[in-house]
Amino acid sequence: MSGGEKQTFKIRRLDISDKTKGYIELLSQLTVAGSLTDEEFDQRFKEITSYGDDHLICVIEDVSSGKIAATGSVMIEKKFLRNCGKAGHIEDVVVDTEFRGKHLGKQVVEFLMEHCRAMGCYKVMLDCSLENKGFYEKCGLVNKAIQMSKYL
Amino acid sequence: MSGGEKQTFKIRRLDISDKTKGYIELLSQLTVAGSLTDEEFDQRFKEITSYGDDHLICVIEDVSSGKIAATGSVMIEKKFLRNCGKAGHIEDVVVDTEFRGKHLGKQVVEFLMEHCRAMGCYKVMLDCSLENKGFYEKCGLVNKAIQMSKYL
Repeated sequence: MSGGEKQTFKIRRLDISDKTKGYIELLSQLTVAGSLTDEEFDQRFKEITSYGDDHLICVIEDVSSGKIAATGSVMIEKKFLRNCGKAGHIEDVVVDTEFRGKHLGKQVVEFLMEHCRAMGCYKVMLDCSLENKGFYEKCGLVNKAIQMSKYL
Repeated sequence: MSGGEKQTFKIRRLDISDKTKGYIELLSQLTVAGSLTDEEFDQRFKEITSYGDDHLICVIEDVSSGKIAATGSVMIEKKFLRNCGKAGHIEDVVVDTEFRGKHLGKQVVEFLMEHCRAMGCYKVMLDCSLENKGFYEKCGLVNKAIQMSKYL
């Protein structure tokens, strides 16, 4: 972009039209995304949105280019413990390499945490590599446990 | 129990009648459970079961006493990445102190992992304290990341 131009970013929920705005290409910067057909994308979009506020995907769009610059998601878990408490699970936070250094990742995490607050969650959590610990500490999270996983 | 008697355990999904079988008291061995009314329990039970196979709570019942001896849950997350992959999030695994040392925890984790496999998940994950790392390694999981959290 030219020097004098100001970038404008818009933070919002994922829209079904975001497939054409580089959303899947952005996810592929995080891990294997694969190549989805429009039908596969639309079906998964509908499955996720059928959960309403219990599964939210946030995106930040660069308004001038119409490109998705950052994303992250959160699932709300309904528990019995903590007096039928709810916990938010943040997943798949990624900022496009082109747009790094603009605090978009922090905006995504804050958007997702605010959603958890509004949903009445007592806790929000996420898993990350040790190298991203500092970033999430800046977002107000602390390291209290380890993640164990298994590929099936 | 008397010396010659053999304990029989039954592993299955949580049933709405399990509130009377010590299910909430068992959760309170993990963290604050609170005291739920029957109506609160039933409502949360219905909310969770409305997700069908996407949110499963497993229990092990000691048949002779009719008491819930162990539990754990799993939520299936639907993603776009990994070709619209699914990931299983295991939560709230606990074995009653009275029934420890009988491998019930491992049975719960294996039941939940088998559910994830049947649901087509590419991965299963959970967060735990460092002191429980060895137990989950015996269940086949490995430590690959850290957990960050924030109480809201």
